[in-house]
Amino acid sequence: MRRFIVIGHEAHTSPDFSLEDIPGTSGRIDVLARCAATSFLLSHGIRKDAELYLVLCGPSSPPKTIRMVGAELKHLNPDERSTTALFLKALRINSIAESNSTPGIYISGMSFERLLGQLQGPFVLLKEDGEDLSKSRIPKDPVFVLSDHLDFREEEEKALMVHDPLVLSLGPRSLHADQCITIVHNELDRREAS
Amino acid sequence: MRRFIVIGHEAHTSPDFSLEDIPGTSGRIDVLARCAATSFLLSHGIRKDAELYLVLCGPSSPPKTIRMVGAELKHLNPDERSTTALFLKALRINSIAESNSTPGIYISGMSFERLLGQLQGPFVLLKEDGEDLSKSRIPKDPVFVLSDHLDFREEEEKALMVHDPLVLSLGPRSLHADQCITIVHNELDRREAS
Repeated sequence: MRRFIVIGHEAHTSPDFSLEDIPGTSGRIDVLARCAATSFLLSHGIRKDAELYLVLCGPSSPPKTIRMVGAELKHLNPDERSTTALFLKALRINSIAESNSTPGIYISGMSFERLLGQLQGPFVLLKEDGEDLSKSRIPKDPVFVLSDHLDFREEEEKALMVHDPLVLSLGPRSLHADQCITIVHNELDRREAS
Repeated sequence: MRRFIVIGHEAHTSPDFSLEDIPGTSGRIDVLARCAATSFLLSHGIRKDAELYLVLCGPSSPPKTIRMVGAELKHLNPDERSTTALFLKALRINSIAESNSTPGIYISGMSFERLLGQLQGPFVLLKEDGEDLSKSRIPKDPVFVLSDHLDFREEEEKALMVHDPLVLSLGPRSLHADQCITIVHNELDRREAS
């Protein structure tokens, strides 16, 4: 199993944004939609061995965590708009306990810190100054932790450090979260095949 | 310089589609918009050493080629809608000769075959059964050739084979074109850094 956590620092937690202007009205949920696409979509099919946790921290009722389960997902399309429409549907459910909104998509009031405690790890923090992923041992069933277009906050790094994560780098350039997920999958695909 | 060609087999060549439903009305120009994002966008900045050629083959006046030049691009955002709006603007120009629509974006009536002749190569065809990219010599100033969500047509492969391309694979899974571009960039970034 490959798991990814992406923190959406300003991502709206209420279904108050417009599909006609996702970047401008949702607190950059477009970033999270692209992460969903690269987490799950192959050219023909869905990665059933992946799970994605999107931690939404924006207005008006943070935190919310959207959990996406590859083995259960149906009809995930690669475009941002249709994926964001699935998130909108999830955000219309107002419950602290986890609820299912559409096949393979769940929402809860889980915080980042509590999510870390629940998943237990082993966590991998992707940062520019980490050890090179391609030369590193990657633990079984890793949980990769990424940030959206904004840097991790101090308290988030602190919460993660409690769990003693591996800190890995994907190369010399600083990339978008969805690009990082693509590269991690490719590295793991190659290792599994060889 | 890193160059990418992506063929949009059904991508509309007239500005007749809706930004409210890009996948459903444009012949999958959303695929090309995602390729533009991964061709050029870093976490903070634009890849100035990249060029992207999108060959549009759909209705109603094929072929059209949109050329994007990293060194000249301004205001390219990562979301599909704003990039597709730039393509719409380019498609409103009706000229066989190349014309500039917005900074770094050009459009012409160039066909895939003529484009290959103009670029000269060295071409790299990305296919599942190729040699592993990570273990291959990559020529200087490569031109990577990709297809959208549809397979290359026989006449396209034939036109490319005239130019004796390298045939490389990116790993064991079949990926989307935008994901392939991310992986190619990462491999070249690593090589340049080491």
